Amino acid sequence: MNIASSNGIELPAWLSHIKPSAMETLLSTSSNPEYISFALGLPALECFPITNFQQCVNDVLQHDALAMQYAPPLEKLKEHIIQIMKKRGVECTREQILLTSGAQQGINLLVKLLLENRGKVMLEELAYPGIMQAIASYRPQVITIPTHLESGIDIDQILHYLKAGNRPSFLYIVTDGSNPLGLSQTNEARCQLAELAEKYNMPIIEDDPYGFLNYDKNIKPISAYNKNHVFYVGSFSKIFAPSLRCGWIIGPSSLICRLASIKESSDINMATFAQRIILSYLSKFNIHEHIAKVRDACLEKRNHLIGHVLKHFPDTIQYKLPQSGIFLWVELENHNTTQLLEMALKEIKVAFVPSEAFASSHAMKKINGMRLNFSRPSIKEIDVGIEKLGRLIKQL
Amino acid sequence: MNIASSNGIELPAWLSHIKPSAMETLLSTSSNPEYISFALGLPALECFPITNFQQCVNDVLQHDALAMQYAPPLEKLKEHIIQIMKKRGVECTREQILLTSGAQQGINLLVKLLLENRGKVMLEELAYPGIMQAIASYRPQVITIPTHLESGIDIDQILHYLKAGNRPSFLYIVTDGSNPLGLSQTNEARCQLAELAEKYNMPIIEDDPYGFLNYDKNIKPISAYNKNHVFYVGSFSKIFAPSLRCGWIIGPSSLICRLASIKESSDINMATFAQRIILSYLSKFNIHEHIAKVRDACLEKRNHLIGHVLKHFPDTIQYKLPQSGIFLWVELENHNTTQLLEMALKEIKVAFVPSEAFASSHAMKKINGMRLNFSRPSIKEIDVGIEKLGRLIKQL
Repeated sequence: MNIASSNGIELPAWLSHIKPSAMETLLSTSSNPEYISFALGLPALECFPITNFQQCVNDVLQHDALAMQYAPPLEKLKEHIIQIMKKRGVECTREQILLTSGAQQGINLLVKLLLENRGKVMLEELAYPGIMQAIASYRPQVITIPTHLESGIDIDQILHYLKAGNRPSFLYIVTDGSNPLGLSQTNEARCQLAELAEKYNMPIIEDDPYGFLNYDKNIKPISAYNKNHVFYVGSFSKIFAPSLRCGWIIGPSSLICRLASIKESSDINMATFAQRIILSYLSKFNIHEHIAKVRDACLEKRNHLIGHVLKHFPDTIQYKLPQSGIFLWVELENHNTTQLLEMALKEIKVAFVPSEAFASSHAMKKINGMRLNFSRPSIKEIDVGIEKLGRLIKQL
Repeated sequence: MNIASSNGIELPAWLSHIKPSAMETLLSTSSNPEYISFALGLPALECFPITNFQQCVNDVLQHDALAMQYAPPLEKLKEHIIQIMKKRGVECTREQILLTSGAQQGINLLVKLLLENRGKVMLEELAYPGIMQAIASYRPQVITIPTHLESGIDIDQILHYLKAGNRPSFLYIVTDGSNPLGLSQTNEARCQLAELAEKYNMPIIEDDPYGFLNYDKNIKPISAYNKNHVFYVGSFSKIFAPSLRCGWIIGPSSLICRLASIKESSDINMATFAQRIILSYLSKFNIHEHIAKVRDACLEKRNHLIGHVLKHFPDTIQYKLPQSGIFLWVELENHNTTQLLEMALKEIKVAFVPSEAFASSHAMKKINGMRLNFSRPSIKEIDVGIEKLGRLIKQL
């Protein structure tokens, strides 16, 4: 069952399938100024509130004797999260909140809470690689659900599986500005999913990093409609700063206690210095004004990107205007985007993430899609990068 | 096999054994000024280099445009860790280092790398609860090894198990200033363990949060003697600041790559803001001068604590002078320290951790030991707290 490493140590078998993710590999291109990167979901550099942030950091260091010490999670930070969630349409109490080191940790803790070894999970056919990494060591059976660019996740298919007696440990979904499709589910779909979760006792992990960056209207997440089966995963990474690693889970209070123990076993607690800085920021400034600024900047870039894609890419592409989030999904007529990425990195120093990276089952390998991030690149980089990429595609 | 939660969601069976740890419960007493706490392994508040720290934070915010952004792990920080480890007697390269969110995460990642579901692990009879939490979900078979207050871990017993054909996924050990016994292994034992690891192809997780706080002489860790089987876990928590959550693993480079993927799936990466602050500190200031200051402060408190324990506790106690670390282990003649803690919290508002919290197997329940931390309380608190505790014990 086990595999042997080069120095003779025996490793668990699941590790034989693990490779560095496309994200891990492409992160270096994002911080290398020689490349234009549409690859990772990095926030817009120009939107970070550096001056206000600095004021908060100094405030913490001057007035908080415990700034460098271990401490329990800050209850006052949870109070602010309650207010932030109210704007998102979700009511909760402090006992329903767990602070996490970013959304990825939130996902990871929930997987550990819910998934038995060799259990079943339900994922969209194209899914966020972070969920696939989080479940890999459990070697689960993955039930894949198609998602259509127009109509969203295939609820009939979910119902079909549930009616056939399948009980997944959870369904994972990014309801708004999904990753990688940039898709937002209809309000009807949200209500249906909330009902199915209730009826079939099926937990849902609702990952919502982009829910505050809605360009159209604010639709409530699934969590607003089902308090018992839906675990909401939130994050300050896209609306404040990813370098602090701060997120949260909202779930039933009886399970939040258990998650707290799992969190403690993972890394003791969330860095309290970062917690204190965010608390100071939320006390001094209006985060919703900041979010509006981020949203406006992203909207401008979204429109700019789409304009350039339509101008420079072949007429045969398929895409859908994202109503939320930071990704545009484009499907080429008949090109393998993994090969295209290889050429793009080498010949024009442009990065994106090919569809292969998001395939949640081995059977399904969509080869002609590409995820383009529009929050991180500047308007200038969008101009240059998309023109180059379009020219490369047309040469193929 | 599974257990049902109060709201009907099925949870994995291993969770039925999980309770909040004594540490989690006692953390709140440590930040409550009404209590005198000898419970947690918190650093001395008065030793934090707040002014220098503030200078570094401002430096980062003023000169580093990426302070709030995602970024790959900082290679320059690894260079500093190489130098720090040289002082500890361990030679390594950048490729052998993984940055982690503190030592607990380091342990957790290593467990995930090495331990198969239902595998075997080797622990001392009394062990750090964090390792027990990290392995719980794998439901392993725990092979327990006695440790003697005078002679250290029972190497003959380890050899006996190995000769009988047992191959644990790893042996976990805190070589210096162990937790909870405050014990440092002899140099001979270190060399023997390094040899056994090599001969029987047995990985060792060497957890070294206290190795830089040696009060006697600096003995090299096991990692110095075996590069292929020993994974060193280091941390800035006890020598700089725990609120940043920054630690590191040193291991064979081929396995560090795999650990990087596991780390990414856990929480993307270590908070880069914290990395940048520590890098700035290490560039501007001499951390070894700071460590010497922390060590001197701890030594003074250790001596003070032992003086007071000898003065106020019954003559029948057993203890061993810790040569490293921040814990004093005391065994009472015939009192149950779990019951004593309950009384102490209620009647005199004094906290410590009872031996029961450290029992690594259900069979072994040492009930008469207590772990007293001496880094966190002030000299004044040691005076008052130990006198009260001594009086309470004598009343029993």
